[in-house]
Amino acid sequence: MKAKLERIAPMDIESRSFEIITNELPHEIDGSLAPIIKRVIHATADFEFADTLCFSEGVLEKALEAIKNGASIITDTTMAKAGINKRLLKNYGGEVYCFIGDEDVAQAALKNGTTRAVESMEKAAPLKGPLIFAIGNAPTALVKLHEMIEQGRINPALVIGVPVGFVNVVQSKELIMEADVPYIIARGRKGGSNVAAAICNALIYMLGRE
Amino acid sequence: MKAKLERIAPMDIESRSFEIITNELPHEIDGSLAPIIKRVIHATADFEFADTLCFSEGVLEKALEAIKNGASIITDTTMAKAGINKRLLKNYGGEVYCFIGDEDVAQAALKNGTTRAVESMEKAAPLKGPLIFAIGNAPTALVKLHEMIEQGRINPALVIGVPVGFVNVVQSKELIMEADVPYIIARGRKGGSNVAAAICNALIYMLGRE
Repeated sequence: MKAKLERIAPMDIESRSFEIITNELPHEIDGSLAPIIKRVIHATADFEFADTLCFSEGVLEKALEAIKNGASIITDTTMAKAGINKRLLKNYGGEVYCFIGDEDVAQAALKNGTTRAVESMEKAAPLKGPLIFAIGNAPTALVKLHEMIEQGRINPALVIGVPVGFVNVVQSKELIMEADVPYIIARGRKGGSNVAAAICNALIYMLGRE
Repeated sequence: MKAKLERIAPMDIESRSFEIITNELPHEIDGSLAPIIKRVIHATADFEFADTLCFSEGVLEKALEAIKNGASIITDTTMAKAGINKRLLKNYGGEVYCFIGDEDVAQAALKNGTTRAVESMEKAAPLKGPLIFAIGNAPTALVKLHEMIEQGRINPALVIGVPVGFVNVVQSKELIMEADVPYIIARGRKGGSNVAAAICNALIYMLGRE
């Protein structure tokens, strides 16, 4: 028995996917946030994110404004960096940075007994302009961001807090939700670099695809 | 109320995570395949993969043998390429290739009315040595691989078929399971570049971490 393929033009696959997602959503979702929630489901085929994604008050306007003003995105994984639409972001003046593989970051982590994720946040702190932190892997990065926010050392335009995993992942997200910072969080254990990239791209695409 | 963080040394986070995964597995899993299944759960926090990952007969031995013999990995996303441990793979002589962003691939897709994923598989076909295809995004890539296998044009050492999504994703995986090829498939809609990279890394790590 051969599997039956749906005949569809390449250019129509994404819109058909979003149609299916819209039809299968477990409940109504906020219309203005729908492009973000649906793109995360598109990246994961996991409708649980319709329930776990949490948005701080007014975060959408603040995030879009930041991108329009040339915000750069700092992420904790090369996978998320690979997945973010860097060409479109650059149209607004922003860059995507990931310092996790840098030799000085590895050295600092070894010296300080921390993680490379922590030290890569430290390295990002002095960057100029509006900053969006997109954390898809390391809860230690979120904990470090929380600490730097509390100390007044950084003032992110947005923290996308979607690490995945089992150790301090849940707690690190709750910490960010307690901080005074615009956030998009995937509550619970789930998330990942793919989710971080999907959220960044959803925001970028909301400003126009070309 | 502050979220309570577990105190744990950076080097212990991964082993603690695998301990939690082992404790929470919904049922017994095959011991020899456990490192793969657990690493996918580690990358997704999604225990559903304990039920959806499917392995062809004897695939583990064939895959490990291929890597030891210098197999290269071809993937359909830059995200998966970013996530695969290229340094360790290189110890055995293998490279990781992703042609999805190549200009000639884009041109061919436009000309032939196909997808860039299809044309990137076409570009990979003449590569020498044992080949592992790790597909985390595009069902069209899996359908193309199936076609090329049936035509006797390629003879992959392993197909990792874990695209995520809603259009032809389920069917494309079933196609590969009907083909005469060693496979690791995530049945259903779920998967992704993170899952593809996790499976590749689990295999590489089974041959020794350093």
